[in-house]
Amino acid sequence: MIKPTDDILSEILEEVRPLIGQGKVADYIPALAKVENSKLGIAVCTNEGEVFRAGDSAEQFSIQSISKVLSLTLAMCLYKPEEIWQRVGKEPSGQAFNSMIQLEMEHGIPRNPFINAGAIVISDLLFGRLSAPRQRLLEFVRQLSGNSHIVYDKVVAASEMMHSDRNAAIAYLMRSFGNFGNEVIPVLNNYFHACALKLSCEELAITHSYLANKGVSVETGQKVLEPNQTKQLNALLATCGLYDGAGSFAYRVGMPGKSGVGGGIIAVVPGDMTIAVWSPELDESGNSLAGTKALELLSERIGRSIF
Amino acid sequence: MIKPTDDILSEILEEVRPLIGQGKVADYIPALAKVENSKLGIAVCTNEGEVFRAGDSAEQFSIQSISKVLSLTLAMCLYKPEEIWQRVGKEPSGQAFNSMIQLEMEHGIPRNPFINAGAIVISDLLFGRLSAPRQRLLEFVRQLSGNSHIVYDKVVAASEMMHSDRNAAIAYLMRSFGNFGNEVIPVLNNYFHACALKLSCEELAITHSYLANKGVSVETGQKVLEPNQTKQLNALLATCGLYDGAGSFAYRVGMPGKSGVGGGIIAVVPGDMTIAVWSPELDESGNSLAGTKALELLSERIGRSIF
Amino acid sequence: MIKPTDDILSEILEEVRPLIGQGKVADYIPALAKVENSKLGIAVCTNEGEVFRAGDSAEQFSIQSISKVLSLTLAMCLYKPEEIWQRVGKEPSGQAFNSMIQLEMEHGIPRNPFINAGAIVISDLLFGRLSAPRQRLLEFVRQLSGNSHIVYDKVVAASEMMHSDRNAAIAYLMRSFGNFGNEVIPVLNNYFHACALKLSCEELAITHSYLANKGVSVETGQKVLEPNQTKQLNALLATCGLYDGAGSFAYRVGMPGKSGVGGGIIAVVPGDMTIAVWSPELDESGNSLAGTKALELLSERIGRSIF
Amino acid sequence: MIKPTDDILSEILEEVRPLIGQGKVADYIPALAKVENSKLGIAVCTNEGEVFRAGDSAEQFSIQSISKVLSLTLAMCLYKPEEIWQRVGKEPSGQAFNSMIQLEMEHGIPRNPFINAGAIVISDLLFGRLSAPRQRLLEFVRQLSGNSHIVYDKVVAASEMMHSDRNAAIAYLMRSFGNFGNEVIPVLNNYFHACALKLSCEELAITHSYLANKGVSVETGQKVLEPNQTKQLNALLATCGLYDGAGSFAYRVGMPGKSGVGGGIIAVVPGDMTIAVWSPELDESGNSLAGTKALELLSERIGRSIF
Repeated sequence: MIKPTDDILSEILEEVRPLIGQGKVADYIPALAKVENSKLGIAVCTNEGEVFRAGDSAEQFSIQSISKVLSLTLAMCLYKPEEIWQRVGKEPSGQAFNSMIQLEMEHGIPRNPFINAGAIVISDLLFGRLSAPRQRLLEFVRQLSGNSHIVYDKVVAASEMMHSDRNAAIAYLMRSFGNFGNEVIPVLNNYFHACALKLSCEELAITHSYLANKGVSVETGQKVLEPNQTKQLNALLATCGLYDGAGSFAYRVGMPGKSGVGGGIIAVVPGDMTIAVWSPELDESGNSLAGTKALELLSERIGRSIF
Repeated sequence: MIKPTDDILSEILEEVRPLIGQGKVADYIPALAKVENSKLGIAVCTNEGEVFRAGDSAEQFSIQSISKVLSLTLAMCLYKPEEIWQRVGKEPSGQAFNSMIQLEMEHGIPRNPFINAGAIVISDLLFGRLSAPRQRLLEFVRQLSGNSHIVYDKVVAASEMMHSDRNAAIAYLMRSFGNFGNEVIPVLNNYFHACALKLSCEELAITHSYLANKGVSVETGQKVLEPNQTKQLNALLATCGLYDGAGSFAYRVGMPGKSGVGGGIIAVVPGDMTIAVWSPELDESGNSLAGTKALELLSERIGRSIF
Repeated sequence: MIKPTDDILSEILEEVRPLIGQGKVADYIPALAKVENSKLGIAVCTNEGEVFRAGDSAEQFSIQSISKVLSLTLAMCLYKPEEIWQRVGKEPSGQAFNSMIQLEMEHGIPRNPFINAGAIVISDLLFGRLSAPRQRLLEFVRQLSGNSHIVYDKVVAASEMMHSDRNAAIAYLMRSFGNFGNEVIPVLNNYFHACALKLSCEELAITHSYLANKGVSVETGQKVLEPNQTKQLNALLATCGLYDGAGSFAYRVGMPGKSGVGGGIIAVVPGDMTIAVWSPELDESGNSLAGTKALELLSERIGRSIF
Repeated sequence: MIKPTDDILSEILEEVRPLIGQGKVADYIPALAKVENSKLGIAVCTNEGEVFRAGDSAEQFSIQSISKVLSLTLAMCLYKPEEIWQRVGKEPSGQAFNSMIQLEMEHGIPRNPFINAGAIVISDLLFGRLSAPRQRLLEFVRQLSGNSHIVYDKVVAASEMMHSDRNAAIAYLMRSFGNFGNEVIPVLNNYFHACALKLSCEELAITHSYLANKGVSVETGQKVLEPNQTKQLNALLATCGLYDGAGSFAYRVGMPGKSGVGGGIIAVVPGDMTIAVWSPELDESGNSLAGTKALELLSERIGRSIF
């Protein structure tokens, strides 16, 4: 096994850069569509606290669905396991991230907390137990990232609300099955704010360092989750974290991970390191095209994989 | 991390034994229905070649879908990756193991090689390239297990053929989409023979030891797969190996694995050991109820998990 | 062919009365659940203007989905055919009346105007072109029924709004596909008011007399639709008017018809007469159990059927 | 109402002829693909026994799925209603004619006898009760058509068997649910022979004259079905006879009917006449494009419609 270095990361970025132009930047809201497609960054945070980086690793971007990991982590701190898992499953969906077909057939219980329906249930849980859930999540991220200036991108959040019909349909469908406890619109508003968090690759790797470190933040030493919970969360990421591309991602990269349509991906080598990568163009499953390839190369180059 | 021992394995079996009576023995063919539900065995084969065992670990049983791992391994030896993966996917299905709904919607390309449709495609591949595929698979298993007396259970194979309508429907549907190269009945016959292999827990753990040992059989020193192929196969097992229960299995056990309706499960700790467990009663997803619990306890007790 | 008489209608009611107790009154809202299950009425309005009746034919009840015929009729008066039929189909759904599965697979275009999704699209159309759509529909019904005291049951309408999550999900899903032009909540409010119209069997038969009379109201002589439009509407009723029971209804009764979960059904013998029947208990498809049987007997007794 | 004449029929054919070139000849088997797309014929058989005709009305073609009406008629003569309708439904499918999705969800009970699955069940019924079902069907058609030279097109039947994978999948799926009583291949062979019957428009109109004439053949005076059975069969044709285009056909043409992928359609005006039309190019639902238009024009021109 080889230690990651800034040079290795730089080499990898140059190898994947030719892929830019072959994917497609998310364009369902204008705020995402106008991001420069040539952005490319990567960062690694080891359990020893070293951070390696290359490319646009310090530039903040919209983390989108990566926020589903943070929301679930918060919910796991606030609720007993059975309170969560009676309302959302732990299985891959085998369907598009926003499909309602399975949700109807399975009576309003989403397959897992990383598809939209499942993450909206988690938002509903946070809404039900926290007095100021949006502020709480922000503090949580600021603390874990070590950057007290992290903010919600208000333009992105507002733009998501303007295009929220599909997610409103999902929430109302769950409500019709009794799997939703609050008003739909305020919960969606919080959900979209979480998606609109802006972090850089470095901040993402540091923020999620607890996933590689048995639940303890490498940055702050804070115990975020129990070791057992951390394993469980990584297991969910490995089977459900990459939309309908989790199998291919495991086959190619071999690490638990979570992607967002902003082009970011985080990946975890348990016991070792957390990685974040960013390239806005997406493949057909909605995962960063060059980002996935960079993780695949890194896995080979430094000999890390859970398999 | 604690080394497994016969005693630890025995303790675990006693802890899970009370679960017997809460599951359901597969009964779709008489040969499986009449297996004693109280059977319970476990075996571990470490990469150092040690074998630990407890309970009915030396008694042979019908491995059923665990054979899908062996068939895929053979296919990976015979075909280039793209020849396999253009005919079968690498994603979890999110559906029952024998559902045809997704297969029709995805134009006859099965989701992965561990659901019935995918394994039948793999059988079709083996049929197309081997002159005596049934004999070849048997030799392969005899060699890897170190037991030259391993046989197909002819009664089980014949009984499966008598109840093969659903699998025939699956094969014909794939053929209608051009994803089947041979006659349906002979291919199914081979497929059912593979399911009818009889091995004990000890033989299963030893046979699959290459999965934990970078592709090299611990028993024979034979290189079965390349290290990279072995990682890929483990990745597929982790995301798709437990029917529609892969997510829960990862969450609870944290190891790549493959189950069969005969009540057997194999599980892999890459770089470390292979485990086989047997208890005939199944849970709602079709996975061994006490077997899954035994693996969960073992994972906790000896501190092994890929997450 | 035999002329219907009050006596024939009375006899039929007595024959079907024993069915009461074998169905199930709709109970998704309290206002419907508390209707007496023993209510039973029937009325016939011939093209000559005669009205025959038996049982509780003068008692008003919640017409529920029968209002979908009136709303579509209004829309056909206000819009060109292509404006309607590009937004909603003309085919039976083969699914439950409130399923979202097909709606997602067919990109937000409902199968026909008599399932919930389709009727909500029609409400959206009416909302878009009328300044006071709710008042306009009420006037339309008052005029056609000859009863200026017809009202919306405010309790039912409010209760429906309280249980509107599924329909809100349907509307938002269509909006996400661009097949919805207005705000969801106000359109749903109108939709539920239409469902909450209260009419008796006699009023229903008279109101819908234009369907049997080439588009001209037997009551007022008013031309409601063109003859060609009337045929088209009857064709839609015959293939799509009875939820997922249109085929059985055609097989047994042989008339175009429309049912509501309040237990009412209207049926049309083109060129001859309009019939309305009421019995609150429903069969498994959601159609009045005794009501359907009464229509079947009437069809036999007076020798009327379109087949 | 106007009486049909040869001249009216000729005029209609000239009006629809420009549609030729806008549809698509069925090409899944070579024998159908090579039919001249410019063929165009129509025939009417009145209950008085008059036959009117125009165009290629005397040329025989492959009647394909129109044979499903004849097979069902035979089955209705041989079996009690409940023996048939417990094995096949009476509802429109809302899906493509050869879809297996609904068939799996509804446990192997086909939606109606006019989709492939349903017609294969009917073939299975005929196979179970007749000693020579293929010969019996041929005699039935020869008798009803008044042409003792009607034959099966052996080339078409053989070609269908060569492309029978999808239908074999459907049959095996039903068998896996216990809804199939005989061997799959021989039943399919009979099914394909029925599809391979060759009749002209004139022969089709005469053969099906019992549908318009309360069950009595206009040609032979033979009582084929009871009046009540005839109504029921017409009802099934109206709701399920045009694949997933029954609603549009009812809306436009307003007659019970049945189409085949050979480009033929029969339509019934109960109490009045039977019509057959032929033009090989199909629309997107698989129904004859010019044929449907010809029936629509005829309905307008002579003022016939069940609505």
